[in-house]
Amino acid sequence: MSAPLLVSGLPGRMVEEVAVVAASSPDFRVLPHALSSDRLDGRVHAVGGMELLCSGPRSRDEIPNGADWMAVDFSTPDSGLDNIRWLSARGIPFVSGTTGFDRNEAAKIVADSSVSAVIAPNMAFPIVMIQSALNWLGKEYPGALEGWRLAVTESHQAGKRDTSGTAKAMAGHFQELGIGFSEADIRKIRDPDVQRNDPGIPEEHLGGHAWHGYELSEPGGTVDIGLRHAVLGRKIYAEGTLRALRFLKRRIDQGERGAVYSLEDVLRERA
Amino acid sequence: MSAPLLVSGLPGRMVEEVAVVAASSPDFRVLPHALSSDRLDGRVHAVGGMELLCSGPRSRDEIPNGADWMAVDFSTPDSGLDNIRWLSARGIPFVSGTTGFDRNEAAKIVADSSVSAVIAPNMAFPIVMIQSALNWLGKEYPGALEGWRLAVTESHQAGKRDTSGTAKAMAGHFQELGIGFSEADIRKIRDPDVQRNDPGIPEEHLGGHAWHGYELSEPGGTVDIGLRHAVLGRKIYAEGTLRALRFLKRRIDQGERGAVYSLEDVLRERA
Repeated sequence: MSAPLLVSGLPGRMVEEVAVVAASSPDFRVLPHALSSDRLDGRVHAVGGMELLCSGPRSRDEIPNGADWMAVDFSTPDSGLDNIRWLSARGIPFVSGTTGFDRNEAAKIVADSSVSAVIAPNMAFPIVMIQSALNWLGKEYPGALEGWRLAVTESHQAGKRDTSGTAKAMAGHFQELGIGFSEADIRKIRDPDVQRNDPGIPEEHLGGHAWHGYELSEPGGTVDIGLRHAVLGRKIYAEGTLRALRFLKRRIDQGERGAVYSLEDVLRERA
Repeated sequence: MSAPLLVSGLPGRMVEEVAVVAASSPDFRVLPHALSSDRLDGRVHAVGGMELLCSGPRSRDEIPNGADWMAVDFSTPDSGLDNIRWLSARGIPFVSGTTGFDRNEAAKIVADSSVSAVIAPNMAFPIVMIQSALNWLGKEYPGALEGWRLAVTESHQAGKRDTSGTAKAMAGHFQELGIGFSEADIRKIRDPDVQRNDPGIPEEHLGGHAWHGYELSEPGGTVDIGLRHAVLGRKIYAEGTLRALRFLKRRIDQGERGAVYSLEDVLRERA
């Protein structure tokens, strides 16, 4: 009963990682087709020993139909919405890990279709759980840490230019707790020499990691709280995506249609 | 409009700290009487420049009546309940930080009286907030971290024999998240030489601190999460107690009677 899985968003390191992890699971069977751009249309893209025939927007309607197919999309904000439109029209439920597109627009497309979907810009489920807890804390105890001090540090591979969205979201929750803090105060580490020593990123993950540290202290210095979360490589994102696919399959099998789920919804349900 | 405050549970380092901090606040006026044991009955106990006349159970009925008095009790499980009975009968709303007594019994005494009370075995509000968030996480995402590894370390002054109740409670929440862990795995540090180096407790707080560290890791080692909270000295407990007293005063002024609040209730309300 392995579900046929259509990969969407080639080429891309994240979606390729998901394809490899899915292929090694008994729950999924990766299809030999893949949604891609017109630039790659008709080309065969090798992913972990598999050969996937790329279909750009102009030729994807020629992909044969499958009744119980599912899809996973990691692409760009623009093509992400196009892919979602096509998958929804085709009746293929999907998990989207694409960032930066309009979630409301995506939800509308799904609601008007016969599919359901999980749309989650961050598949690293332990990190999503931490954000979820901080969000809860900020709503539950607004202002409770007024006057406290906060220091936020994040380290990512040198290629990442912008400040971590996770760090910004977390800082926002700490602000709700009453702590004065500005996004500009987030310390960004991008220098591999610093990364080796300070957060202590292993050599093999200097090119792909997401490290975050938060230090809170009571103004008198009698209480301090430290929180640190480090993701090395892409494995956990792929694991989160597979959890989302399994959850979606259960919902589809139960007859759910037109629903959009978050990763929090996925995590709430004990598998 | 400073509230007259009756100190209950003398002698005791915690209640004395609260008396000192309350005396320095414009919101409270520490009364020259204090509930104590029969052993100290009639003696004058000096607390931070104040002189408090101790009344044991046999003589406390001679304490003059005050209409708008409030009380704060930090005592032993046995005398804690006796003190609560006396305060409730006298119509004196109170904040109790006593640990180890039967909270249900205490709540029953308050419910049958004309007073309201805050009963909170841990007044360190930031730590209570962390426990509260972990409790929420465990309920919200049961089993979500199945297969993960956990290490728990706690450090307290050498005189503390038992394992930290906070560490045990936190371990319980992590277990709800699906992590296999036994209370026996909690590493206790009581040796001042180790405390100086490993958790790095400052010299002046070796005699009074509560340090906790939790390390979580994904079995493949691609994600790790660290949480640490350290309380040095008793200041934060006194601050939490004063927050509870201010909260209780607002509720009393609003006409609340017979209600028992937790520290979470106190923290939920923006002052």
